[in-house]
Amino acid sequence: MTEPLRIIPLSGVSEVGKNMTLIEYGDDAIAVDCGLMFPENDMLGIDFVIPDVTYLLDNPGLLKGIFVTHGHEDHIGALPYILPEIPVPLYATRLTQGLIEVKLKEAKLLDKIKINTITTDSAIEIGPFTIEPFHVCHSIPDAVGYAIYTPAGLVIHTGEYKFDETPADGKPPDFDRLRSYGDDGVLVLLSDSTNSERPGRTPSEQIVSQAFEKIFGEVNGRIIVSTFASNISRVQQVINTAMKHDRRLAIVGRSMVDNVKMALKLGYLTAPDDMIIHIDDLDDYPDSKIAIVCTGTQGEPTSALVRMANREHYQVRLREGDTVILSATAIPGNEELVHRTLNNLFRLGVDVIYQQLMPVHVSGHASQEEQKLMLELIRPQYFIPIQGEYRMLVLHARIGEAAGIPKENIFVVENGQAIEFDEEGGFVAERVPNGQIMVDGLGIGDVGNVVLRDRHLLSKDGFVVVVVAVDSKDGTLVYGPDFISRGFVYIRDSEELIEEAKERIIDLMESGKTHRDTAATDLRDTLSQFLYQRTRRTPMIFPVVLEV
Amino acid sequence: MTEPLRIIPLSGVSEVGKNMTLIEYGDDAIAVDCGLMFPENDMLGIDFVIPDVTYLLDNPGLLKGIFVTHGHEDHIGALPYILPEIPVPLYATRLTQGLIEVKLKEAKLLDKIKINTITTDSAIEIGPFTIEPFHVCHSIPDAVGYAIYTPAGLVIHTGEYKFDETPADGKPPDFDRLRSYGDDGVLVLLSDSTNSERPGRTPSEQIVSQAFEKIFGEVNGRIIVSTFASNISRVQQVINTAMKHDRRLAIVGRSMVDNVKMALKLGYLTAPDDMIIHIDDLDDYPDSKIAIVCTGTQGEPTSALVRMANREHYQVRLREGDTVILSATAIPGNEELVHRTLNNLFRLGVDVIYQQLMPVHVSGHASQEEQKLMLELIRPQYFIPIQGEYRMLVLHARIGEAAGIPKENIFVVENGQAIEFDEEGGFVAERVPNGQIMVDGLGIGDVGNVVLRDRHLLSKDGFVVVVVAVDSKDGTLVYGPDFISRGFVYIRDSEELIEEAKERIIDLMESGKTHRDTAATDLRDTLSQFLYQRTRRTPMIFPVVLEV
Repeated sequence: MTEPLRIIPLSGVSEVGKNMTLIEYGDDAIAVDCGLMFPENDMLGIDFVIPDVTYLLDNPGLLKGIFVTHGHEDHIGALPYILPEIPVPLYATRLTQGLIEVKLKEAKLLDKIKINTITTDSAIEIGPFTIEPFHVCHSIPDAVGYAIYTPAGLVIHTGEYKFDETPADGKPPDFDRLRSYGDDGVLVLLSDSTNSERPGRTPSEQIVSQAFEKIFGEVNGRIIVSTFASNISRVQQVINTAMKHDRRLAIVGRSMVDNVKMALKLGYLTAPDDMIIHIDDLDDYPDSKIAIVCTGTQGEPTSALVRMANREHYQVRLREGDTVILSATAIPGNEELVHRTLNNLFRLGVDVIYQQLMPVHVSGHASQEEQKLMLELIRPQYFIPIQGEYRMLVLHARIGEAAGIPKENIFVVENGQAIEFDEEGGFVAERVPNGQIMVDGLGIGDVGNVVLRDRHLLSKDGFVVVVVAVDSKDGTLVYGPDFISRGFVYIRDSEELIEEAKERIIDLMESGKTHRDTAATDLRDTLSQFLYQRTRRTPMIFPVVLEV
Repeated sequence: MTEPLRIIPLSGVSEVGKNMTLIEYGDDAIAVDCGLMFPENDMLGIDFVIPDVTYLLDNPGLLKGIFVTHGHEDHIGALPYILPEIPVPLYATRLTQGLIEVKLKEAKLLDKIKINTITTDSAIEIGPFTIEPFHVCHSIPDAVGYAIYTPAGLVIHTGEYKFDETPADGKPPDFDRLRSYGDDGVLVLLSDSTNSERPGRTPSEQIVSQAFEKIFGEVNGRIIVSTFASNISRVQQVINTAMKHDRRLAIVGRSMVDNVKMALKLGYLTAPDDMIIHIDDLDDYPDSKIAIVCTGTQGEPTSALVRMANREHYQVRLREGDTVILSATAIPGNEELVHRTLNNLFRLGVDVIYQQLMPVHVSGHASQEEQKLMLELIRPQYFIPIQGEYRMLVLHARIGEAAGIPKENIFVVENGQAIEFDEEGGFVAERVPNGQIMVDGLGIGDVGNVVLRDRHLLSKDGFVVVVVAVDSKDGTLVYGPDFISRGFVYIRDSEELIEEAKERIIDLMESGKTHRDTAATDLRDTLSQFLYQRTRRTPMIFPVVLEV
C-alpha cells in the first residue's frame, strides 16, 4: 500500500464523530452518516448545527458516497444541507431510506440524489473500499454498523448500538458476524461512546414492554404514550400492548403520523387493519379502549403533548382518569421544559408515569459492559472512541485499555482531527477545518461569534437607540433626543428615568463640551454611564446624530 | 379560638413554599425563610427571583418575624431585598446567623435589623405563637425545622432535611423530639418534597467520606475538590480526609473563602492551626501534600473551577497528575455548563471524578422512605407537601396517603394559595398575590413579561433600526436610509442584502405609495417582508422618520 488510510470525525456540537465520519484512501472517501445537532442553550436563535464539510468542498470529487447507519435526525438530518453542495449517492437500509426520502422530498432533492438500498447480506464496492453493513440493535429498527475493507486493513464502525437479546423488533445482535470480523483481524474500531459513563449493561427493551403491560393491565382510563417520532420500535411496543388489551390506537403529531404511516407501509410496523384510528374518532370508543401515541417528550412548546398539557390541544382534552406515559429521557438542556410539562400534566389531575417512577424508557446505547464486549469481539489493533462528548471518549478509552488495547493505540481526538494509518502504524495527523456551522432560517453558517455575542448582550439587557438632529452650521440641537428601546426597562413604567436621560443628553449637547466629530461617542458614554448608575444594567447603546 | 389559622406558601419560581412560608393567626404572622431562586433558562438577563410579598405590604404590621431554617441562598438570599420594605427581626441558629450577617453587611442593613440567635433548646413567643426550633440533618450544619404552637394547634415545618444517622457534623436526627410532637398531636405537617421522586433512602454523608478516603488513599498528585460554598459539612469532610493523609488545604473562590473563615471562627469547621494554607503558598509543598477546595460545581463561567478548566486561573494551573473531584450535582438547567467544564478538565489530562463515576456527592434531602418515616413520627391530622415542584408535591401527597392520611386532609397547592384551619377543619381558602418578582441589577420586579418577551425576540433574530429624513414640505428623501442592526446578520458579510434593502426603501419613498402619516408603518412592513423572504428570520424592526 502506498497511500495512508485516513479517518476524520466531523460533527456539529460537542460530540465527536456523532454526525459524520470520513474514511479516506487515496483519491476516494466515503462518509458514515450526515446528521445534525440541536443547538446548545447559548446558541441563541439557532435552528440547528450541521457538520463542517469545508474539507470536502476543498477537495471536490473526493467523497464518493454517504453510508447511513440509521434514521435518527443526528445521522440523517444534515443531508438536505450538504447534498446540494456535494451531490453524492446515499446508501441506507430500507427503513432508513424511507426516513431519508421524507427529508429529501421536502427539500426538493429526491430526483437529484440516488439512494441505494442496502441489506446486511450485501456488500458495496466503491473505489478501494468494500463496505459490508451489519445488523445492530438500537432504538430504531434497521440500524446497522459498517465493516469497511480498505487496502490498509479492516475498519469497523459500530454505528449506534446496544446488545439487546430481546429487542422490540425481535432481531438480536449478530454476535457471530462481529466475532468473525475479529477473527479476520481488524485494524481499527470506531465505537459508540454515548453511555460510557454508565456501569453495567443497558436494560433490554423488554423491560419497557413489561412496564407497559403492567400499566395497561391496571389502568381503566385513556392511556397516552409520548415518545420520539423516530422511535418506531417503541411505537411497536405500544401497538403490541394495546392490542393485547383490546385498545385502539390514535397517532398524534405530524412527524409521528408521517413516520408511522411510512413504517407501516414498509412493514417495519405491524398492526391489525382496524386498530389504528383517526384522532377525530376518539369519541366513538370508551376511554378504556383508547390509547394514543404522540410527540412532545422534550417539552417542545408546539408539540402535541405540551399542547395537551397546556389545554391547547383541541382534539385531545386531558382530564382526571387519563394516564400519560413519558417514554423517553430529557436530552441535556431540555430538563426545564420537560419538568414544566410534567408539572402541568399533574395540574390537570392526570396520572403521569415517567422514567424516575417506572422503567417506561431505556437507552438505545451500550453501557460499559457492552462496550467491553464489543472490544472483545472485534479485538482491534487500534481504537477510536466516537459518538460522545470528550469526557465520554476518555472513559471509553479506559475501557479499551482494560480490554487490552495498548494506550498508544487508542485515539481520543476532537472533531476535524485526522488519524492516519500506514505501514508504520497509526498516528494523529493534521487537522482539517471544523467549525460550528449553524443554521438559522435560510442562513447556513452565516451566524458566527459576533452575531451570537450580540444576541447574548441583547438578551441580557436589551438596547437603546438615541436619535438627535443638530444644525449643521452651529451644532445646536434641532430635534430630539428621541429614544427607541426594547428589553432594557419597561418604558411605560420608566418615564422618570427616560426624562432624566433626555435632560443629560440636552445638557451635553448644549454644554459646548461636545462637537460634531465626537458627538456620537460622547452621547453613548454619557448615556451608558447614566443608565448603568441608575439601573446596574448595560444595554447596547446606539447614538444616531443627524446634521441638518 | 375565634380566628382561623392561615398557612400560605410563597416562592419565586416553580417550587412551592421553597423560599418562604407564612403562618398567620389574627393580627400576627411569622414567616419561615426568605430565600431567592436562580432564574430559569428563559428568564433572560434576570439575576434571580425573590418571593412576592405584596400580601405583607398590603397588611403592614402583620409580619412579626422571620424564622430561618438554614443558611442556603434559597432560604436567606432574599433578605436584603425584603427587609428594607418590611424590617422585622430575624431568628436563626448561630451558623445561619453568621451567613445572614455577611449578606446584611454587604447590603448595609446590619445595624437596622435585629438578629436573634436561637438554639434547639430555646422557645420563642411571638403574639399567639410559641416557636420551637428542632435539629435536622441537611447539607449544611445548624439546620433546623420548626414546631410552631398556635391557638389552632401545632404546626410542624420540617425545613430541609434527611435522616442521616452518620452525618458529617456528627449530629444525628432528633427522632425522640419528632416522635414526642407526634405524641402531643400535630394539626398540620409541612414537609420537604425535593426528593419525592426518589425511592428508598438518601445515602448517608458517610459514603462521601468513604469515597474521599479511597481517592486520597490512591492519588499522589494534587487533589482539587469542588463543592458549593455553603456546603460547610462537605468542607469538613475534605479537611478530615486531607488531615489523615497529611495534606495541606488551600481554599479558592471568594464565597468559599468567606464562608470557611466564618465557620472556622464560629467553630462549625475545625482544622489544625497550620493546615489551611494560602493559595500563593502552594509551591512550598509537594503535589502529594496538597488539596484544594473551590467553587464552580455548576459550571459558572467566572468560578474558580471553570477558570482552572479554561487555563484562566493564574494561581492554579491544572496539569496531568491532578485529580479533580466534583462533589455536587448539576442543578437542572445547568447541565450543559457542567458538562462543558468536565470535558475541558479531561482535555487538560486531569483525572476527574464525579457523581456518575463514584459517590462523591449525596443529596441533602429525604427520599421516599424517609418522607414516610417523617409522616409516621409526626402523625399529623393535615399534610401540606412543600419545597418541591408540583409533580413532587403530588408524589409526596401519595406517600402521605400511603402513610394513612385521608386524601381530603392533604393539600397540594400553588404558591400564594392560603390554607385555613378553624373549628370545622382545614380547607383551601383564597389566593393572595403571587407573581414572579425578578431582580435585574437594581431593578426589583420592574422586568415583567413585556421586557422578557422583547429580550427573547432580540435573542432569536436581533433588531434593525432604519433611519430616514424627509423634506417636511414635499416628503422627498433627504437623508438615509441608514441602518443599525445587531444580532440579525453579520453586517460585513451581508453588504448585498443591506444594499438591496436600501433600494427597496428608496423605491418605497420615491414611489409616491407612502406619505408622511404612514411612512413609518410602510417602512417597517416593506423591510420585514423583504428580510423574511431573503433570510427566513424575523428581526424586530424600528423605523425612524425625521421631517426636516
